[in-house]
Amino acid sequence: MKTRAAVAFAANTPLEIVEVDLEGPRAHEVLVEIIATGICHTDAYTLEGKDSEGIFPSILGHEGAGIVREVGPGVTSLKVGDHVIPLYTPECRSCKSCLSQKTNLCTAIRATQGKGLMPDGTSRFSYKGQTIFHYMGCSTFSNFTVLPEIALAKVRSDAPFEKICYIGCGVTTGVGAAIWTAGIEPGANVAVFGLGGIGLNVIQGARMAGADRIIGIDINPSKAEMARQFGMTAFINPREIGSDKVVAAVVDATDGGADYSFDCTGNTEVMRQALECCHRGWGESIIIGVAESGKEIATRPFQLVTGRVWKGSAFGGARGRTDVPKMVDWYMDGKIAIDPLITHVLPLDDINKAFDLMHSGESIRSVVVF
Amino acid sequence: MKTRAAVAFAANTPLEIVEVDLEGPRAHEVLVEIIATGICHTDAYTLEGKDSEGIFPSILGHEGAGIVREVGPGVTSLKVGDHVIPLYTPECRSCKSCLSQKTNLCTAIRATQGKGLMPDGTSRFSYKGQTIFHYMGCSTFSNFTVLPEIALAKVRSDAPFEKICYIGCGVTTGVGAAIWTAGIEPGANVAVFGLGGIGLNVIQGARMAGADRIIGIDINPSKAEMARQFGMTAFINPREIGSDKVVAAVVDATDGGADYSFDCTGNTEVMRQALECCHRGWGESIIIGVAESGKEIATRPFQLVTGRVWKGSAFGGARGRTDVPKMVDWYMDGKIAIDPLITHVLPLDDINKAFDLMHSGESIRSVVVF
Repeated sequence: MKTRAAVAFAANTPLEIVEVDLEGPRAHEVLVEIIATGICHTDAYTLEGKDSEGIFPSILGHEGAGIVREVGPGVTSLKVGDHVIPLYTPECRSCKSCLSQKTNLCTAIRATQGKGLMPDGTSRFSYKGQTIFHYMGCSTFSNFTVLPEIALAKVRSDAPFEKICYIGCGVTTGVGAAIWTAGIEPGANVAVFGLGGIGLNVIQGARMAGADRIIGIDINPSKAEMARQFGMTAFINPREIGSDKVVAAVVDATDGGADYSFDCTGNTEVMRQALECCHRGWGESIIIGVAESGKEIATRPFQLVTGRVWKGSAFGGARGRTDVPKMVDWYMDGKIAIDPLITHVLPLDDINKAFDLMHSGESIRSVVVF
Repeated sequence: MKTRAAVAFAANTPLEIVEVDLEGPRAHEVLVEIIATGICHTDAYTLEGKDSEGIFPSILGHEGAGIVREVGPGVTSLKVGDHVIPLYTPECRSCKSCLSQKTNLCTAIRATQGKGLMPDGTSRFSYKGQTIFHYMGCSTFSNFTVLPEIALAKVRSDAPFEKICYIGCGVTTGVGAAIWTAGIEPGANVAVFGLGGIGLNVIQGARMAGADRIIGIDINPSKAEMARQFGMTAFINPREIGSDKVVAAVVDATDGGADYSFDCTGNTEVMRQALECCHRGWGESIIIGVAESGKEIATRPFQLVTGRVWKGSAFGGARGRTDVPKMVDWYMDGKIAIDPLITHVLPLDDINKAFDLMHSGESIRSVVVF
């Protein structure tokens, strides 16, 4: 079949909207009509050639929502008409990682996904006879796409696609880091570094989990207002107090240090501050942001020996097929907010504008509807 | 009263055995006759002037065992004749740290202990009218010493002092890191970097907790034999395979990476290897070794984002008054071994020889008996 898609033909060039060829689903695969897709920093990171594993030409996009239109042989958990959210972190429930019950980082199809291919080692996309590669196993910048069954979360059918698509990455990454990776408990003191889309979602996750003090840190004071709406209780601006005083300020604001801190900036110096502002004895710091290639984190080992814990979170620690449907329920029940975070809705033809809005800092999240 | 003690009058000078004056116990304090004391790397670290917070003149030693000879007013949990192990990490059971139930790092008397003083801000030791400072709240290189009640673990009276003194630091630090900080579970794969006294104790802790594979890593192949006796199942010598191949070798030997790894070297480059040889998704690396002042640990944040956890352990995560008596029971029941680790027993007059034996690598642990 033919489908309209925004194709990344090469790094550092705008996406081109063209009609590509899409093969139907093979065994254990599913054809999905994408109704809406968010545009995430990771898409921009790849498009700008910063991802050393980026492959071109490819169809980017990994934050979508849509409807099952066809299922391949052997598919048992989904049927035509089901509403789904694609998962760049699948959940096979039978690999060593899934069976460990200690991680969400399913490894069933990691090797082929990293090469822009379906699990059988081939692509379903082509353009004028040339292979177009998949991206993060999702390729949601195409109106129709094919995914493995294990990479689709079935969600309720009354939830609006142009909102819940954001659960496919940003919402789950932030809220999940707070509740699943950190396991914030009622009464905890929390510090969130970086008040972009991820930081705001960490904040609402912390609020949902019953945190007491939620300290937000950002060099842009205009971020504070929405952060307060999402649950932030105090704001620290490093540009105002001096970035060398941030750790002391957080320790001060949390009666000895944060029980949990989160880096949502990708800046390795900030990651260090996030660790060192944690409470002696038990504070845990969680890295969410993606650092520039080659950058390293550092600290004195004494910080860890005296009880701080340094960890990271990918996709919020969510097991996609199990947890993403819960996240959709929480949105529908009003336990988490998404609407204020989606600042721009655009047609596919304007997808490059969504990247511009992200770079200029005008948007929190832009969503493209097909 | 008078007591014989090995006094550190200044950094980088041998200890001097002299008769010092010792005041009796004040409120909530206890006079202990030390029967035996181990000599630990931390004592040497301070004596060599490497500890920026080292204070002289002082009476070093923090790994002792002895008998209660007098109790001050208000002491309720100990009586004359009780056998005790001094605790450089006390357990008050009422400070914020103890009540958190998340850390063993009791903070009740941290400020004064760091200054070489009893909790009331004074010292009990003097020599020719000059104040001699306490060390780590213990000063076990003195035949008699005074400690706060909260810094003494009461232990069974049939356990031999010259063996259980080692539980006051090394045994608990190693075994405890395995079972309390890491929480090793049956079937786990473990990597232990550095096969000195601490590493051997981590290994026997891992064996006691039911670990499957216990990989030992050391540049000295002569360490392998005793490590095997303690439970090591495979040995890697970085000098043999090249230190850049150690991570891959551990990953290979543990079917994808260690579930738990331990740095018992104090070398920050080794700490990095210990982290990076952990299993993607869940491997936890625990820093036990004390690094040189000013040295930092570093890694790519990707290591943490993909599920590895970096933490540290102090005194094995043991709550001293609660857990040290258990450790003594485990020794008496044959669940852990101590005897082969105590390679030298010396009289107090020969205490400087114990430091020489440590530096030459001839001893695992030397014990001084009074």
